[in-house]
Amino acid sequence: MADVIQLEGAAPRRPSMEPLMQLVGDDLIKVNHTILDKMHSRAPLIPQLAGHIIASGGKRLRPMLTLATTRLCGYTGERQIGLAAAVEFIHTASLLHDDVVDESDLRRGDATANVLWGNQPSVLVGDFLFSRAFQIMVQDGSLEVLRVLANASAVISEGEVMQLETLNNVELPEEKYLEVVAAKTAALFAAACRIGATIASRGTAEEDALEAFGRNLGVAFQLVDDTLDYSQHQATLGKTVGDDFRECKVTLPVLLAYSRGDEAERTFWRRTISDGDQKDGDLEHAIILIESHNAHRDAIERARHYGAMARDGLGIFPDGEAKRALTDVVDFCIERVY
Amino acid sequence: MADVIQLEGAAPRRPSMEPLMQLVGDDLIKVNHTILDKMHSRAPLIPQLAGHIIASGGKRLRPMLTLATTRLCGYTGERQIGLAAAVEFIHTASLLHDDVVDESDLRRGDATANVLWGNQPSVLVGDFLFSRAFQIMVQDGSLEVLRVLANASAVISEGEVMQLETLNNVELPEEKYLEVVAAKTAALFAAACRIGATIASRGTAEEDALEAFGRNLGVAFQLVDDTLDYSQHQATLGKTVGDDFRECKVTLPVLLAYSRGDEAERTFWRRTISDGDQKDGDLEHAIILIESHNAHRDAIERARHYGAMARDGLGIFPDGEAKRALTDVVDFCIERVY
Repeated sequence: MADVIQLEGAAPRRPSMEPLMQLVGDDLIKVNHTILDKMHSRAPLIPQLAGHIIASGGKRLRPMLTLATTRLCGYTGERQIGLAAAVEFIHTASLLHDDVVDESDLRRGDATANVLWGNQPSVLVGDFLFSRAFQIMVQDGSLEVLRVLANASAVISEGEVMQLETLNNVELPEEKYLEVVAAKTAALFAAACRIGATIASRGTAEEDALEAFGRNLGVAFQLVDDTLDYSQHQATLGKTVGDDFRECKVTLPVLLAYSRGDEAERTFWRRTISDGDQKDGDLEHAIILIESHNAHRDAIERARHYGAMARDGLGIFPDGEAKRALTDVVDFCIERVY
Repeated sequence: MADVIQLEGAAPRRPSMEPLMQLVGDDLIKVNHTILDKMHSRAPLIPQLAGHIIASGGKRLRPMLTLATTRLCGYTGERQIGLAAAVEFIHTASLLHDDVVDESDLRRGDATANVLWGNQPSVLVGDFLFSRAFQIMVQDGSLEVLRVLANASAVISEGEVMQLETLNNVELPEEKYLEVVAAKTAALFAAACRIGATIASRGTAEEDALEAFGRNLGVAFQLVDDTLDYSQHQATLGKTVGDDFRECKVTLPVLLAYSRGDEAERTFWRRTISDGDQKDGDLEHAIILIESHNAHRDAIERARHYGAMARDGLGIFPDGEAKRALTDVVDFCIERVY
């Protein structure tokens, strides 16, 4: 195989979140203020615990999608600030409840709230943030936004329950797995994007296009996340891998490796994932099996497919800074694997 | 002391839920149909688990309050059906999350959902029911109803968190305890009643009056519940007592018995409630202490005070079947102790 020749002076541009940050950075500062403000409660444990998870809470991707899609639709008001905070509250509530659910000890290397404070406050503070999200939406006053986010919330919990029901099933059909991903992860991406058009009072065509963009981006994002959890490369970078494996959670790389494996390999997957009987060295063996069947590479290929659909979903919108930033998010979500 | 002389043929009328059932029975059947219908989900575990808790879920008191207050306000449409179901969903979600929180094994003598299915599904199905409640409200289309129930939901979870923060504190001031009760229990009673006037498009005066009625009824209800849990009489009837004691939860009878007790008694309460160190015979001793200080009787007296305020809150409404039924509910909630 010939090496790709790198042209001098034309360093390949790496997709990043930078254009999105440029686009919505000012709004994001306001969203962060709103988040701090709305966490306030006469029960001191609420801002304490919520502050912990929101501070350690990653990239604010979902609220940034609301900010960026509103911008894409040419809106220049301020309604996106509160509603982006509401989206982040729904996400945070679901993380808090997910940590209870998963009995997971670590999230992004930090101790999760339920380890620090116990399951009980995590459930209740999640409930509080969830209610607060709806209070913010009521204050905004759009029944359509309320409809979209109430639907998304119901679908997210349905997705989480479906995941529980299929958790250890290594023979789960890929399309059933995608149905879970669409519900538990992509529904909130879809809603966060759709309301951008709603806030800007654009028509159904724009709302539907942004919903489809968000949904496909969300599926791609989750499939890449699944794959990162079995990535030798991530492990080399010192990142935590193997969370899903330890929680005996089937994800796309496992489903592909199982269906492509021989009987000895399938016995391995059934023991470790279905029966939850894991020994030292099992995670390393799992990573080798996944790579040997190219399950890792092909899961990313699947993600690319959804990424391509996401990009095409933006077709009806005019070119410009906002559209470029959103396209870059798609590429970044996929290429962060490497 | 002279005995009360019972006049022949004039058996004292016992307050009951019967007039309320007469008033709203037909509507309640429709509410139950709506509940079954709206529990439906493609995740089979959701109707299964939700069905269990809703079926074992007591008297439907909160949705009946919405039905009755709507009737009190002269409304003759159908909006109260869906919204009463939404109220019951919020209540059920909070019960499901409360059982996780309390690590309690039994609710009204039945195994709780988290014992049968585990904590994880209980949290997620609670989230689903909560989201579904908001979907129903969005479909109804009243931002004012959404505002009232979103506020109530936030206050309920604040109350639950405050309860966690004060759980084992036998020196909690009575008024702090009442603040917790007002939030965790009475807020939903208040909201369930207030929306009766909102549905009927009555003015703020009626809305405020019904909210006050519901809040006072809710506090009375909770104080009686607290007292029943230490009732020798209930134990004699074969009912479960001592749940709060085993969960080391301070309630009004304990607070009164502690503040009236001598040093030896206070040591007992600190050991059993604050330190959670309980032995055989401790519950029986707790009941004796509570009765010896008349803490049982005086907690009910406190409940009567709130009951009286609840009844007076109905003053601005015309006499009639609905008002009598609601007054009887107040009396029933208090007199069920005997």
